[in-house]
Amino acid sequence: MRLPILAALLAVLVSPATLRSEEGMWTFDNLPLKALKAQYAFEPDKAWLDHLRLASVRLSGGSASFVSADGLVLTNHHMVRGNVQRLSTRERDLLKDGFVAATREQELKVPGLELFVLVSMENISERVLQAGQAVKSEAEALRARERETQKAREELRTKTGLTVEPVALYQGGETWLYVYRKFTDVRLVMAPELSVARFGGDHDNFTYPRHHLDFAMVRVYEGGKPYRPEAFLQWSAGGLKTGELALVSGHPGTTNRLWTLAQMEYARDFGTPMQVAASGRRRAILEAFAQRSFEARSQVGGQIYGIDNGLKATKGYLAGLKDVEAMKAVERTETELKKKVAADPKLKALAGGSWAQVQKALIESRKLALELMLVNARGSELLGIALHLVRLPVEVSKIETTRLSEYSSAALAPLKTRLTQARPIPFNPELELHLLTEGLKEAQSMLGKEHRFIKAMLGGRSAEAVAQEAVAGSKLQDPVEVKRLLEGGAPALATCMDPMVVLARKLDPLQRQLRERSERLVEGPLREHAARIARARFAVYGKDTYPDATSTLRLSYGTVKEYPANGTLIQPFTTLLGLFDRYEGWGGGEFNLQRDTWRLPARWLERKDKLDLRTPYNLITTNDIIGGNSGSPVVDRKGELVGLAFDGNQESLAGRYYYDERTNRTVCVDARAIREVLTKVYDAEHLVKELMGTK
Amino acid sequence: MRLPILAALLAVLVSPATLRSEEGMWTFDNLPLKALKAQYAFEPDKAWLDHLRLASVRLSGGSASFVSADGLVLTNHHMVRGNVQRLSTRERDLLKDGFVAATREQELKVPGLELFVLVSMENISERVLQAGQAVKSEAEALRARERETQKAREELRTKTGLTVEPVALYQGGETWLYVYRKFTDVRLVMAPELSVARFGGDHDNFTYPRHHLDFAMVRVYEGGKPYRPEAFLQWSAGGLKTGELALVSGHPGTTNRLWTLAQMEYARDFGTPMQVAASGRRRAILEAFAQRSFEARSQVGGQIYGIDNGLKATKGYLAGLKDVEAMKAVERTETELKKKVAADPKLKALAGGSWAQVQKALIESRKLALELMLVNARGSELLGIALHLVRLPVEVSKIETTRLSEYSSAALAPLKTRLTQARPIPFNPELELHLLTEGLKEAQSMLGKEHRFIKAMLGGRSAEAVAQEAVAGSKLQDPVEVKRLLEGGAPALATCMDPMVVLARKLDPLQRQLRERSERLVEGPLREHAARIARARFAVYGKDTYPDATSTLRLSYGTVKEYPANGTLIQPFTTLLGLFDRYEGWGGGEFNLQRDTWRLPARWLERKDKLDLRTPYNLITTNDIIGGNSGSPVVDRKGELVGLAFDGNQESLAGRYYYDERTNRTVCVDARAIREVLTKVYDAEHLVKELMGTK
Repeated sequence: MRLPILAALLAVLVSPATLRSEEGMWTFDNLPLKALKAQYAFEPDKAWLDHLRLASVRLSGGSASFVSADGLVLTNHHMVRGNVQRLSTRERDLLKDGFVAATREQELKVPGLELFVLVSMENISERVLQAGQAVKSEAEALRARERETQKAREELRTKTGLTVEPVALYQGGETWLYVYRKFTDVRLVMAPELSVARFGGDHDNFTYPRHHLDFAMVRVYEGGKPYRPEAFLQWSAGGLKTGELALVSGHPGTTNRLWTLAQMEYARDFGTPMQVAASGRRRAILEAFAQRSFEARSQVGGQIYGIDNGLKATKGYLAGLKDVEAMKAVERTETELKKKVAADPKLKALAGGSWAQVQKALIESRKLALELMLVNARGSELLGIALHLVRLPVEVSKIETTRLSEYSSAALAPLKTRLTQARPIPFNPELELHLLTEGLKEAQSMLGKEHRFIKAMLGGRSAEAVAQEAVAGSKLQDPVEVKRLLEGGAPALATCMDPMVVLARKLDPLQRQLRERSERLVEGPLREHAARIARARFAVYGKDTYPDATSTLRLSYGTVKEYPANGTLIQPFTTLLGLFDRYEGWGGGEFNLQRDTWRLPARWLERKDKLDLRTPYNLITTNDIIGGNSGSPVVDRKGELVGLAFDGNQESLAGRYYYDERTNRTVCVDARAIREVLTKVYDAEHLVKELMGTK
Repeated sequence: MRLPILAALLAVLVSPATLRSEEGMWTFDNLPLKALKAQYAFEPDKAWLDHLRLASVRLSGGSASFVSADGLVLTNHHMVRGNVQRLSTRERDLLKDGFVAATREQELKVPGLELFVLVSMENISERVLQAGQAVKSEAEALRARERETQKAREELRTKTGLTVEPVALYQGGETWLYVYRKFTDVRLVMAPELSVARFGGDHDNFTYPRHHLDFAMVRVYEGGKPYRPEAFLQWSAGGLKTGELALVSGHPGTTNRLWTLAQMEYARDFGTPMQVAASGRRRAILEAFAQRSFEARSQVGGQIYGIDNGLKATKGYLAGLKDVEAMKAVERTETELKKKVAADPKLKALAGGSWAQVQKALIESRKLALELMLVNARGSELLGIALHLVRLPVEVSKIETTRLSEYSSAALAPLKTRLTQARPIPFNPELELHLLTEGLKEAQSMLGKEHRFIKAMLGGRSAEAVAQEAVAGSKLQDPVEVKRLLEGGAPALATCMDPMVVLARKLDPLQRQLRERSERLVEGPLREHAARIARARFAVYGKDTYPDATSTLRLSYGTVKEYPANGTLIQPFTTLLGLFDRYEGWGGGEFNLQRDTWRLPARWLERKDKLDLRTPYNLITTNDIIGGNSGSPVVDRKGELVGLAFDGNQESLAGRYYYDERTNRTVCVDARAIREVLTKVYDAEHLVKELMGTK
């Protein structure tokens, strides 16, 4: 059993110094094929890679994959948790009790859930760059490039009839158009009980050793029939062992690894602490609402979960930024690049002054940050709609180059559709009132009552009174009314006395002014100079690095591997034995309230003796992933499904800024565990047969 | 099941502010009975406490307890690991394979293992203090007090015929004589395999969640028959639950909680880092020897284990000293005491200047530390004997007050016995040569070859040559020769040309000089002013605090309780499920070399299915313990045995300097696990019957 390890060791020893560790979220057009060959003797061909790409699925904020010929899609439970919650009723709590469709007829339509498959990618960098060179000022060049991007996007959309999204890679160093096939008829097939899906709850979130059965299955339908995907992942009959190669294909959301040191320091000392405080206030507002009733909690529970998740993640990011050693490494890298730029007259002209410009922009950002955070619709859905209604006629009347970005020609149609279509989730005036009231109170307490935003919105009255009047008096919850106002244009708006529209007319100029200043003093310069530094980096290092995450498809490679933590080495796999150990370790059936976190559903306890408890349950790999990768398939070198990425360990959170191979680990559900429990706990042998292609 | 928790909560709420958490290693003469009553409604009477004390056992560096009417003693496997190793042969590796005596006849005599029971305690503080008041200088007073202590000890020893040890509590604020019954015929009854006793090895040492079966059983014999102890602990039929009261009776070794802030800072910035480096060098020297052969490793393996254990502990102490928040609390406490001392003229006269004196002594300590560490017998046993031989005639000829402390009247007889009796472990000239050679080389490399110690010892020759000649030419490994020289006194010594004696004659004046300086400039002032500060603290706070640990019997109370670590809450119990999870989590049977750490013996794998895997295996409590408590019994409020303390978590290491109730946890083997595996893995039903008193 030692050979593969020896081989890997040898590979590392003989590999050239330029080959780094398993760092990297690689775009499918620029994969680290040399490193894969050298380190793992792994040489995937185009067919192998196309197959993995076409089996990979994107959903809002996350990832998934096709896993059967009949359109079955595997993702994380936490990616569809909100949907499962909304499908629940007081009588039938799918979140608490789980759900298994015994037949296709029982599969439940999930309103609002959209899935995307990346069918092609087009590099339009050259064309976009050209467009920017005709004009002189930085701001005009930016606009020109944006226009050209939108134009190319529109062309491709028309040509393909598919969803086309522009993607800026390497901080704008490259521009691409990604073409997606979109699916909107998605039905819930299987979701385990919340208590096993997130066993250990918020406590265990972002930790390891973990015991989460964080998977769910949905099925894509087209024309009322199960969709037959172009590609789907075969389920491995076995699974991974320690040291074996693991590939993760998914949609990492955001990393900031190409940030300058100054940006990281800004985040560490100012931006992130401010954001943590804001999230805490937002959570308190939502929690106060959730406590009103079962229905209230089921409406905002998902948002609260999202905030908790975000807060724990943010604290991890902050810990990463506070790691003195790691930040020194960031500084060294930057110093090296700066030197190379300074030594080359062309690069110096391009980006020599950019670091100082970034610094300057960050100073401006500090001044504007509080107002930018607070001067907005304050969580009110109707005020948000009203703001669009007020702005649309104005913006549409301008030439494209001077419009606010969300009113570009390309964005107009989808925006209008969104404003006028029926809601997937019914409007809740109570929640609307609560959010607006508390949002206004928060702004008042932080800006002071003499601030022009507070004066404009409240006019000396209380937040409660203003919000009450606005929510009660508005008709904007009705898409018909919104449509009427939209179609009426400027004249209809000018005479509209809907109280939300009245508030929006006051908010609009204040927000425009702030946005203009932020664009001019902060966002514009940051974008411009990040792109300049990125272009300089390109010139120095070429494209053997990977771009920061952008919620687009990436491939990451790594191995199953332990790491040092908590004073010891942490095991690469957990097993079902460990799940029951943690249940019993809190006293088994004898829980007090706090211990509900490590509870198991009755059917798990009843069927425990049927399970092979040695079955690998969760596992860790060195793959470089981040939020947005949740639900990504983990495949072996055959391209077969061996696991499902659902999280990182605490230490991986620093991965937002840098990858530390010693401790950064991806946490996955082992595919073997899914098969084991589908069969023995959930009576879902039919699904296992479908997955294994043996039905 | 909620009532006890509510009761405990109420108790905390209504308890006076002066009652603190479960901090404290309390002497049996001054137990926190009020706190126990208020917090736990627990009121042990004298009989209860005497019984626990008399069932508690001390052994070198650790603790144990009588657990059967026939003298069975329970302690940690790691407390007798060295003994088990020395009982092993190449053919019969008791460490690897474990040992169970099926009958009394099979029980194995353990050479050199001595057990002690504390039968009485006498407070001689007043008498000792009086003795010091007749003389004027600080140094003379110290000597006078020491003499008086030795005198009282000798009186009590003669009166009782038992082992009597002086104990300085509260940094010398109190002096006691502890009277022990000593047992020397001790036989090994049961020791599990090393791989389960320290599953996870050095990696898991000082961590939690843990899965160590760290217990062993020996039996005390007297007159060739099993000893019938005055008291022994009844084994609980059940066990502890989360939140329940746990009492630990044992012998914590050393804490430094009453140190001044300056002493802690000295340890943090200088003393401890220096000690870590020295241990590392010592380990390397021993490891080089161990690699020679099986026998070599079995001779020094225990010492290496001890160093590893010490190093990991020391790193934990250091982490504690580096905890900024905690050190601020230490500083606040000291500042408060200083203020109270300054405000009281009597206290000011006593201790007002003591903090500055401590500072001064520490400055001197820095200067002397390296030489004190290196100018000695350098690990050579024979050179150590020779040094005693050279010094004894000189010291005996002095009046007691001017002797080196180890040659006091009371110490002479035991010292002579030790020097002239047959060795429990045979002399190994190879090891002796290795240690002396490497010890001299180390001193040379650190002091430089111009240092007077190096010049004196080597005289321009190599360490190898000097050591070779000394070890080969010396006869001091023979107790008969040592006896001859001892009895010959100064004249015999003067003409003795044994090479070790020759070296000792060169070493003696150098070491005396250093020791004199250290005593005068460092140790004396530290002892004196620590005692003054301690007396001032007494005057201010009285005796409702506990003294620093002194390897003497203490009682600690606490509860079974989780703690926050590794990003989550850590479960209060582990179970046998967790043990097998960690085995499987590293790949089960498929190990590579590194993974041998989490290996299980064949009989455990074969008999796994017989075990109730839900059985609690290890557990954590808030008891305040430290090294030396290893092997302490954990009893419930009935005084019945429910567990066996064997370690602390990483966070508990800071406990050397302060107790942090949020995270400081004692790690124990659950008594239920011991019964379960004795019966189902070790075929030792006979022992379970003896323990349960049902045979």
